[in-house]
Amino acid sequence: MAMPPDTTAEPLLLRRDDAGVATLTLNRPARFNPLSLAMLEALLEAFDAIARDPQVRVVVLAGAGKAFCAGHDLKEMRATPALGFQQRLFRLCSRLMMKLTELPQPVIARVHGIATAAGCQLVAMCDLAVAADSARFAVSGIDVGLFCAAPGVALSRNVGRKQAFEMLVTGRFIDAHEARRCGLLNRVVAEAALDAEVAALAAAIVARSAAAIRSGKQLFYRQLEMGVDAAYQLAAETMAHNMMYDDAAEGIDAFLARRPPMFKGS
Amino acid sequence: MAMPPDTTAEPLLLRRDDAGVATLTLNRPARFNPLSLAMLEALLEAFDAIARDPQVRVVVLAGAGKAFCAGHDLKEMRATPALGFQQRLFRLCSRLMMKLTELPQPVIARVHGIATAAGCQLVAMCDLAVAADSARFAVSGIDVGLFCAAPGVALSRNVGRKQAFEMLVTGRFIDAHEARRCGLLNRVVAEAALDAEVAALAAAIVARSAAAIRSGKQLFYRQLEMGVDAAYQLAAETMAHNMMYDDAAEGIDAFLARRPPMFKGS
Amino acid sequence: MAMPPDTTAEPLLLRRDDAGVATLTLNRPARFNPLSLAMLEALLEAFDAIARDPQVRVVVLAGAGKAFCAGHDLKEMRATPALGFQQRLFRLCSRLMMKLTELPQPVIARVHGIATAAGCQLVAMCDLAVAADSARFAVSGIDVGLFCAAPGVALSRNVGRKQAFEMLVTGRFIDAHEARRCGLLNRVVAEAALDAEVAALAAAIVARSAAAIRSGKQLFYRQLEMGVDAAYQLAAETMAHNMMYDDAAEGIDAFLARRPPMFKGS
Repeated sequence: MAMPPDTTAEPLLLRRDDAGVATLTLNRPARFNPLSLAMLEALLEAFDAIARDPQVRVVVLAGAGKAFCAGHDLKEMRATPALGFQQRLFRLCSRLMMKLTELPQPVIARVHGIATAAGCQLVAMCDLAVAADSARFAVSGIDVGLFCAAPGVALSRNVGRKQAFEMLVTGRFIDAHEARRCGLLNRVVAEAALDAEVAALAAAIVARSAAAIRSGKQLFYRQLEMGVDAAYQLAAETMAHNMMYDDAAEGIDAFLARRPPMFKGS
Repeated sequence: MAMPPDTTAEPLLLRRDDAGVATLTLNRPARFNPLSLAMLEALLEAFDAIARDPQVRVVVLAGAGKAFCAGHDLKEMRATPALGFQQRLFRLCSRLMMKLTELPQPVIARVHGIATAAGCQLVAMCDLAVAADSARFAVSGIDVGLFCAAPGVALSRNVGRKQAFEMLVTGRFIDAHEARRCGLLNRVVAEAALDAEVAALAAAIVARSAAAIRSGKQLFYRQLEMGVDAAYQLAAETMAHNMMYDDAAEGIDAFLARRPPMFKGS
Repeated sequence: MAMPPDTTAEPLLLRRDDAGVATLTLNRPARFNPLSLAMLEALLEAFDAIARDPQVRVVVLAGAGKAFCAGHDLKEMRATPALGFQQRLFRLCSRLMMKLTELPQPVIARVHGIATAAGCQLVAMCDLAVAADSARFAVSGIDVGLFCAAPGVALSRNVGRKQAFEMLVTGRFIDAHEARRCGLLNRVVAEAALDAEVAALAAAIVARSAAAIRSGKQLFYRQLEMGVDAAYQLAAETMAHNMMYDDAAEGIDAFLARRPPMFKGS
């Protein structure tokens, strides 16, 4: 695509923190924020830091410029065609995707423009996703002869299997409204309202008990992979222990006394 | 909430039987029918009796007063804060939820008003659910600092994971139409038509072969937790044996002769 | 139903090949194309041949006459009531259903009229499904005393469990629009446009890399039955190896050079 080489001095990833919300912005707008090896490493490093940061209660993942993320860096992949490089790249990308689920804090995808291939996978792996109504989604690797196997892992855990299969073998784009109907998104708003909607969702989470959300998120993904009986045993233990948190005592006492609760900051 | 103590002489749970349909009604209307320890025990006992009762072909689960069920009894939980009590409570509740699936007869949730936290979980665990269009649903424990881990087990097996996660971390209510669209409900009708709709659905089941529905329900939940190949092996055996039932011979012969079938009563 | 005995000299199954698309047509239109033992065997044989045929890139499964497929051959089943026959029949049918998933090529169901019981199961097991807006769907074995256990395996992997359970215990028909909304279909069009829509979908697949689609389909169904972490490990390996295909090199190079790709024929 006659792209300029990536020699810009701009940081690959921007981080801004405000009122418990850490916003990470993919920052290669001229190239639609591709997930190059360096970008994957920057994201993993940023998430590792956030995991240890008790000030962060919610993460927002966004893209600079005209699009959220167009997937892998095809130019880099063709410049280093050896199998070993491809394995390293895809393993690193899969590690990043798992990290989103393992992170103690909820992650909200803020999507505009396009989210394609591994960019669509990022949306599917975030706990929550809000998009502009002009956003479009595809797992379109098949258009260049590369089946989006890994994005398909994420997509097929968000949407029905017939929808996922069609998108994977045809590369077809879906718009934001269809993406919401089929389960890939939580909310769709006008692009002008996107930041406000994301902020409202983030604030709703920040207002609640950090400890309860932390243990709840962990439980949520563990129980999804269990049989229902085992899932209930784990969930019952989790809830019994959640009742021992100061926040639960405060929350229930406040509710019974008809006053607002005062949860701990983290 | 300045609730009166639970000293009423009214039974916790009402049971009414009519034409093969057993209706169980949670009967603490002034408190929105909370799942206290005593209520959980009453429900388990009632379901045990129904499991052994060949006259019962379908169960309807309903709530007295203005709401279906508002979840656990927060007052009781704070009055007995020890970990041991909480473990006993949540294990008992999980046992009740599994019982709905294990029961030989289909269970229909009849939902009006609100169904929150473990009340929403009851709806999700019933085989079928019909709601008034004014009904509202939430897994809102997070509002009091208690993540609805166990309701999340049920919810995430009815609706997409992004929808489930949002409801769990924000406590947001959804209305009956959204609940139907996302998979939590089978049917939504005006509140005035709710009993007739539930009765029609129950009657459709009573009119069919009890033996086939009994073995079919058991198979349905077992195969859901299997790989597809193993699921098919079990389903093939189940169908071959179902063909040995008198009801299948009668049903097919009636169909081929273009006459209505005469199934056995149970 | 006073059906004529199956003594017609017409072949049970028709196959037509055109431009990489093999169309298999169930050919017992007077009886709504029942899945008799002989029809199951004919289908298995045809799919075995297609699996070995590099000229075939997509399969379309259709029904002759007024309907897609009305399920098993009830007359044959009652004529041979022994358990051993029923076991043989249902095992063979399950083998056919698994074969649709195992086939290297994508399979598109072309649905018109009715698709009931094992006919609805065929739709659910195909990778993709396009229907006329007049088509109707049911797993209605329960109407004759035979719970559609095996169709339920397929249905519950396409649609939500409450919807699947209701259809299984009531035998209720759903129309094509509801079938699409709930995940059983990819596309719904006027019956007059059905062949063109199926052809367009098939052509979109034929235009892409056969090698990438072959390995992608296999990966897709394997990863669905794995935990997400194991799924990602397999998907990452699959993508790294896909990058070694000539088609991926050609596809990416063509994309970067802004020219159309030239994929290999198979």
